[in-house]
Amino acid sequence: MRENQQNLQDIREQLRRFAMERDWQQFHTPKNLATALSVEAAELLEPFQWLKTGEMSELNPTALAAIRYEMADVLNYLIMLADSLDVDLIAAAQEKIQLNAQKYPVDAARGNAQKYTQL
Amino acid sequence: MRENQQNLQDIREQLRRFAMERDWQQFHTPKNLATALSVEAAELLEPFQWLKTGEMSELNPTALAAIRYEMADVLNYLIMLADSLDVDLIAAAQEKIQLNAQKYPVDAARGNAQKYTQL
Amino acid sequence: MRENQQNLQDIREQLRRFAMERDWQQFHTPKNLATALSVEAAELLEPFQWLKTGEMSELNPTALAAIRYEMADVLNYLIMLADSLDVDLIAAAQEKIQLNAQKYPVDAARGNAQKYTQL
Amino acid sequence: MRENQQNLQDIREQLRRFAMERDWQQFHTPKNLATALSVEAAELLEPFQWLKTGEMSELNPTALAAIRYEMADVLNYLIMLADSLDVDLIAAAQEKIQLNAQKYPVDAARGNAQKYTQL
Repeated sequence: MRENQQNLQDIREQLRRFAMERDWQQFHTPKNLATALSVEAAELLEPFQWLKTGEMSELNPTALAAIRYEMADVLNYLIMLADSLDVDLIAAAQEKIQLNAQKYPVDAARGNAQKYTQL
Repeated sequence: MRENQQNLQDIREQLRRFAMERDWQQFHTPKNLATALSVEAAELLEPFQWLKTGEMSELNPTALAAIRYEMADVLNYLIMLADSLDVDLIAAAQEKIQLNAQKYPVDAARGNAQKYTQL
Repeated sequence: MRENQQNLQDIREQLRRFAMERDWQQFHTPKNLATALSVEAAELLEPFQWLKTGEMSELNPTALAAIRYEMADVLNYLIMLADSLDVDLIAAAQEKIQLNAQKYPVDAARGNAQKYTQL
Repeated sequence: MRENQQNLQDIREQLRRFAMERDWQQFHTPKNLATALSVEAAELLEPFQWLKTGEMSELNPTALAAIRYEMADVLNYLIMLADSLDVDLIAAAQEKIQLNAQKYPVDAARGNAQKYTQL
């Protein structure tokens, strides 16, 4: 994520036009978009499934290129779903970070996987 | 997604700080982040699972509020994964839309679910 | 699921032999098997993602054949995970049905999607 | 999976009765069952998401008990989906093992993660 003038609104406009030109809005119910997003998230996970450490160094350039496009698919479906449900993704993301800050206080959570999953 | 001055870079900085303060970077391998993203995508799908039409009108306000926060979780893990793999999400999303425009030409794809899934 | 003398134990033995012959047990940690299972479950979901009614009649023979093998993948990874965690799948499935019978009493749950998801 | 006289057909009968008593068959389209299965597979994955080695020893008894019931949920939805699509799960699983034996010949696949994912 280097500097980039484009933003989520621009992508949303491109995705709206893409679907409209193909008359695909009829398939894009919120449920179907959430399903497609979940399928893409699993495709993103697939190249990682047999890794031992899970670090980037275990992935070859072909896998990394595939992963990059799967991340794009996830973002695109997320933007389409947000559009269909009138959700402001950036505002929601920030609210969630604030909620998590309350849920996982620094002192209790620090460096502890047990706490990380069970707090 | 109404007008919003904040952007993905701001969220990324907040997420970096959040993890650093809790010493959680040790758990955030690319594999673990991809796993968490996939788990959140499924939690997002969960309120839709028994719907009949899949339209927004089938969801009550409680479900919609939960869905909004699950979308936030998906975006936050996607930003963290992009950060760990040095991926520019916006650039990747736009490239993918252009690839899909070639893969699904307007004339062949228009309004046809069969073509939609099989082209 | 027509009559079949084979059972889960036979499949488990075949899967053990398959992995041993290829020296793949090293990749089969419980976490990796759970990841692979989740990826296969999403591949199973993929042919359904744009359907409108979600009924079998919307699926062509090619899709149905693919779905059948994805179900096989899900079962095989489930058996391997059960083997690695020493879980009796049949006993667990029956216990879960009994728990659900208590959680969703017949009178309260009957024919109500709202109750189905919220009870 | 220790010795057990019960089998998949018995579970299927219990699941049929369970749904019928609650008039829930109306929600159980193949698409909805595949969605529910995928959601349960992700819930099964959730306790593994931050583990470092992914071995059973990283899981405490509470997590293991939860995992066991999530495995039960996956199996139960898989049986219901197989019932709705008239799939013989055991036969499909065995066919898939035979297909994989051809796809991953012992000599080429042995002990090699690279080959494991790329063959």
